[in-house]
Amino acid sequence: MEIREFLETEVRPIADDYWDRAEFPVQLIPRVGELGLLGPMWPETVRFENSAVYRGWVALELSRVDAGFSTFIGVQNGLTMGAIGVGGSVEQRAELLPPMSRGELVGAFGLTEPLSGSDTARGLRTTAHRTGDTWVLNGAKRWIGNATFADLTVIWARDTADDQVKGFIVRRGTPGFTATKIERKQALRSVQNADILLDGVEVSEADRLPNIHSFRDVATVLRLTRAEVAWQAVGVAVGAYEATVKYALEREQFGKPIASFQLVQDRLARCLGNITASIALCVRASQLGDQDRQGDQHSALAKAYTTTAMRETVALCRETLGGNGIQLDHGVARYMADAEAVYSFEGTKDMNHLIVGRAITGIAAFV
Amino acid sequence: MEIREFLETEVRPIADDYWDRAEFPVQLIPRVGELGLLGPMWPETVRFENSAVYRGWVALELSRVDAGFSTFIGVQNGLTMGAIGVGGSVEQRAELLPPMSRGELVGAFGLTEPLSGSDTARGLRTTAHRTGDTWVLNGAKRWIGNATFADLTVIWARDTADDQVKGFIVRRGTPGFTATKIERKQALRSVQNADILLDGVEVSEADRLPNIHSFRDVATVLRLTRAEVAWQAVGVAVGAYEATVKYALEREQFGKPIASFQLVQDRLARCLGNITASIALCVRASQLGDQDRQGDQHSALAKAYTTTAMRETVALCRETLGGNGIQLDHGVARYMADAEAVYSFEGTKDMNHLIVGRAITGIAAFV
Amino acid sequence: MEIREFLETEVRPIADDYWDRAEFPVQLIPRVGELGLLGPMWPETVRFENSAVYRGWVALELSRVDAGFSTFIGVQNGLTMGAIGVGGSVEQRAELLPPMSRGELVGAFGLTEPLSGSDTARGLRTTAHRTGDTWVLNGAKRWIGNATFADLTVIWARDTADDQVKGFIVRRGTPGFTATKIERKQALRSVQNADILLDGVEVSEADRLPNIHSFRDVATVLRLTRAEVAWQAVGVAVGAYEATVKYALEREQFGKPIASFQLVQDRLARCLGNITASIALCVRASQLGDQDRQGDQHSALAKAYTTTAMRETVALCRETLGGNGIQLDHGVARYMADAEAVYSFEGTKDMNHLIVGRAITGIAAFV
Amino acid sequence: MEIREFLETEVRPIADDYWDRAEFPVQLIPRVGELGLLGPMWPETVRFENSAVYRGWVALELSRVDAGFSTFIGVQNGLTMGAIGVGGSVEQRAELLPPMSRGELVGAFGLTEPLSGSDTARGLRTTAHRTGDTWVLNGAKRWIGNATFADLTVIWARDTADDQVKGFIVRRGTPGFTATKIERKQALRSVQNADILLDGVEVSEADRLPNIHSFRDVATVLRLTRAEVAWQAVGVAVGAYEATVKYALEREQFGKPIASFQLVQDRLARCLGNITASIALCVRASQLGDQDRQGDQHSALAKAYTTTAMRETVALCRETLGGNGIQLDHGVARYMADAEAVYSFEGTKDMNHLIVGRAITGIAAFV
Repeated sequence: MEIREFLETEVRPIADDYWDRAEFPVQLIPRVGELGLLGPMWPETVRFENSAVYRGWVALELSRVDAGFSTFIGVQNGLTMGAIGVGGSVEQRAELLPPMSRGELVGAFGLTEPLSGSDTARGLRTTAHRTGDTWVLNGAKRWIGNATFADLTVIWARDTADDQVKGFIVRRGTPGFTATKIERKQALRSVQNADILLDGVEVSEADRLPNIHSFRDVATVLRLTRAEVAWQAVGVAVGAYEATVKYALEREQFGKPIASFQLVQDRLARCLGNITASIALCVRASQLGDQDRQGDQHSALAKAYTTTAMRETVALCRETLGGNGIQLDHGVARYMADAEAVYSFEGTKDMNHLIVGRAITGIAAFV
Repeated sequence: MEIREFLETEVRPIADDYWDRAEFPVQLIPRVGELGLLGPMWPETVRFENSAVYRGWVALELSRVDAGFSTFIGVQNGLTMGAIGVGGSVEQRAELLPPMSRGELVGAFGLTEPLSGSDTARGLRTTAHRTGDTWVLNGAKRWIGNATFADLTVIWARDTADDQVKGFIVRRGTPGFTATKIERKQALRSVQNADILLDGVEVSEADRLPNIHSFRDVATVLRLTRAEVAWQAVGVAVGAYEATVKYALEREQFGKPIASFQLVQDRLARCLGNITASIALCVRASQLGDQDRQGDQHSALAKAYTTTAMRETVALCRETLGGNGIQLDHGVARYMADAEAVYSFEGTKDMNHLIVGRAITGIAAFV
Repeated sequence: MEIREFLETEVRPIADDYWDRAEFPVQLIPRVGELGLLGPMWPETVRFENSAVYRGWVALELSRVDAGFSTFIGVQNGLTMGAIGVGGSVEQRAELLPPMSRGELVGAFGLTEPLSGSDTARGLRTTAHRTGDTWVLNGAKRWIGNATFADLTVIWARDTADDQVKGFIVRRGTPGFTATKIERKQALRSVQNADILLDGVEVSEADRLPNIHSFRDVATVLRLTRAEVAWQAVGVAVGAYEATVKYALEREQFGKPIASFQLVQDRLARCLGNITASIALCVRASQLGDQDRQGDQHSALAKAYTTTAMRETVALCRETLGGNGIQLDHGVARYMADAEAVYSFEGTKDMNHLIVGRAITGIAAFV
Repeated sequence: MEIREFLETEVRPIADDYWDRAEFPVQLIPRVGELGLLGPMWPETVRFENSAVYRGWVALELSRVDAGFSTFIGVQNGLTMGAIGVGGSVEQRAELLPPMSRGELVGAFGLTEPLSGSDTARGLRTTAHRTGDTWVLNGAKRWIGNATFADLTVIWARDTADDQVKGFIVRRGTPGFTATKIERKQALRSVQNADILLDGVEVSEADRLPNIHSFRDVATVLRLTRAEVAWQAVGVAVGAYEATVKYALEREQFGKPIASFQLVQDRLARCLGNITASIALCVRASQLGDQDRQGDQHSALAKAYTTTAMRETVALCRETLGGNGIQLDHGVARYMADAEAVYSFEGTKDMNHLIVGRAITGIAAFV
């Protein structure tokens, strides 16, 4: 498969290096565009089968090689183009989606704030105040992927007039907009997350997303991507598992490959069980998506389950490598580190379980 | 659905009582035959769609109400009729399969021995010695389900002449054949397991299964059923989960239903994740079966994974009921107890993981 | 040691049988009195070293052989004599403690109610109404150990006058007092738990415990026993572990004792780790008790930790016995079953963790 | 306490920075010497109470702030001075131990090899060949802590004459000795581990450790330190736990500190249980050491248990910080990363469990 070949020949050889230096291989962005990985969901830009199952498999394949790369695409394609696709006008879509799908424009998605992680909806404090056809944005955002080098960032802010959340396209270089790279990350190091400061940023009404009326519309965008994070988690687990099988067959102790020990085989079988069940679950969740029957609880369940299984899997894998497992070069350390980010973003296990719990019991237990 | 109605109205109301008394509700066997649950796999007796996926769902539905009932059917249909279907002559099939499918004849499957659980193949010690057209069987069997009241028991024995395992139909009342009920079981109490003693039991050549040539053919029979045990495990988990949701919504502490507590919702969500992923995995495993692509490693993976998930699920459920969880009447205790049998039979987690591990690594680590 | 010999020769040989029949070996009660196991905490009755560490080790030794037996003693000695020792007058103590310590009088402790498990304090609904020197009790109790054959039951009831919880000694045969055995328990089956109905039960003021002024005093009694339940849990784990080591050395598969397999040794080592750490924790918790420095959070932590470790241990043990693990006679099934009761009484893991959590954070999260 | 103050004021403020840059704060080594932390075990250098329990608590305190710092001291004091103390002549001890205890000389301990991790004894391939009073060493070592800047490295090599393992002091700058820093470590990044190449390194007979006669003597050195790794693991868990409690009390979501949520309190209580039980276990293991009753199985059990508990603890902690948990600055990420090294060195869980399993069963299952 073309995508798989690209990943093996162009991404895998450099993934650990970029991760180690906490840099993103921006030179590969146009290549990703050529492969059709940016923008598969929109009529303007779709290049191949547009199904949730297919997109999910692609996310798995990407993460299997580099979850940072997969996250870049998730931010560009799922979140940012998702926001424009769901909330944008015909003109905005026509202007932005095609160059974004070619990788000529990079986007970011400014939702999370320093004081609101799980509590994104109620906790959103960034404000937008309208005067004539100009909006003035004030506030702060945190963990915004791609934002240090993005050409545009969608900023979600609360309209001071009606208290509703609205979306704004903020172009690079707009005065008052500062994006500072978050340093010393220990997971998804190649992803460039930023702390964003919005200090009287002016955005014209033409750059507001007109079809976003409240947080409910933001949730629609998020729902499109959360199920993909479930797939991404499986990819991380697969990447670690494959490296571990390889290592276990090569590494000898006591005169035999460690793959011949019961304790090692028990772990490998457990990992493969986790992976197989997670894939089966993701396929089903995405089928629901393709039938327009996927609710928040379905993607929450899939996300919580596969990321929990991933976390167990990468730990079992790393342990199998002994001391070599803590070094980047043996193919497992990066996956174990990245797993913590994938486990946390788009809702921690707690939040997703409480979403599922509400669906089961009819009672919200968030507070 | 007809089957579900039968289970709710005729099985559920009596399941705890029979379990408590360690008796099997034999009066329901003809009803099960009417419903077509015995013998769905054979042309002589098939009544509805004959697919592994369908049979799996039926096993789930049965275990959701009573895993003992489901186990009876697994022994009758999967193992015993399976042995006759796979190894029997046209005449044997014609004589036995139809009345067995109607529940008029009950069968048992004598493979496990006192000294061989996991090591069934190498460890089989029961012997068969041929003189003219008569075989003489000597040895012992253990844990043989249905055998206390079965009309016929398939006995697997090693031919003293060629050292190969062969199969024999032993009719009820044959001299030298004694089946003693195993008492004081704490799981699947309604299933009647027997210790069998074979002391010079004579069987005619006409009651040998002619198409069984070695243990490899026994393994074919087992493969047909192991994947169904994976489904059965999901049914046990579903039964416990449903009772727990009901209890959590009704039981109040601190002035609120316990279903409103975060810790309870977290457990329910985990259980539902286990169940959903397990079903998805079983569907895939059975699809492989229906495509004739299912190897031992696939059913071993499914069995190990779903039974492990079931064991976690029933424990989380029982814990949610507090003290009431240890009493039979609150709908979870029986499932937790039965889970231990389902976790153990048709291969413990260890054995199944080593089967999977061998497929992964190419190295057998059983010894 | 004298106690150990008694347990091995007089208790172990009959423990499974009484458990199976759900009967308590009442004939052994005087023997237990002779050994000094009833009433070690009170000057009137103390027979040997009265320290929490010593009492803890005794609880471990008892549960190692029969947790039901240990529970009987916990109810008699810890709870009922505890209530009289903490709340009784000099006369009440003189009348009751000595014969109770000799096993001539059996006591029960009526606190839990049908609608209040974890929420014992706020949820207590049984009432006491005083007229002259007579109190009239109305309400219901549940899970009351020993109560079917006890000579006296301490009933906790809320005084309708001042809304405070008070304690009353209710003698066997008092009109309006009915104790019905709870049937179909799957754990601690030899312990006789009762549902108690109090329908206008009259108790004289002389049988009220005068030093109990509110629920706070009940809590003092409970604190004395909760740490012992932590020890009891270790005993259950030890009993299962010892039987499993023995089985693993005797049982052969693939031509070797299963004790020689890596997967089995890994489990045994994990169990021994659980046991050793739990004992070390219990010693420390009881040392705090002996220094009068033990708070609710210490016994809650110990109880939650050792019962969780016990639950993991008995499951690992049972699994090691394969199919034989579900039968009472191989020495593990009873421990696994009993573990569920020990895990639940005197506070589930949830409750105990929230007590600890409150101590850590200063914030109560019960509701 | 003096040590604690040093750690809080001089180590904690710089720990993350050095870790991030993968450098060791060599300027603090003399300060550590002043505090008496180097060489507490030897009469030449002891400065305060020399007991295993005391040394264990110090290891805990060190790791609570910086496990890398604690590891440096473990290598200098436990392993290298241990090798000289156990195996050295009076002259060697007099020459080296005092300056090492003052931090003027830094030592390293060259045992592990590229091809032998768990299988250190049998797998040791480095050779020593004697000609006159000169030994020539050839081979390779891996993961050797401190070795990039050590003044001396104890190299363990197999004498080609008698096939026994012997110990040699190799001074910095000896021709043929090359120590290359292992880059891209993801755990204990401040510890300077080296790949060592020994290409015809000449060592005089005077620098051989005369009291080392075989691997059995190396094992004596290792036994002294393995129990301290168990303590070190607890320190890592404590460090992560304390940071998490602080974070949970400060971080608000849904208008309340997250410390008020049941799911957070449940995790904190579990962590505190792990920590408390682990400390209690370590105290007992070290008491056995102080009584000269500690066997390999005791330190193996303690090491496996506390590192497993640590691994669970740091994961529960990190998860509680959500996204902030992956960044170095919130006080948990470094602990989670370091835990993987502590879990692996001085024997993985597998190896330690098999050592314990051998003691339980009398059967070695390493191969």
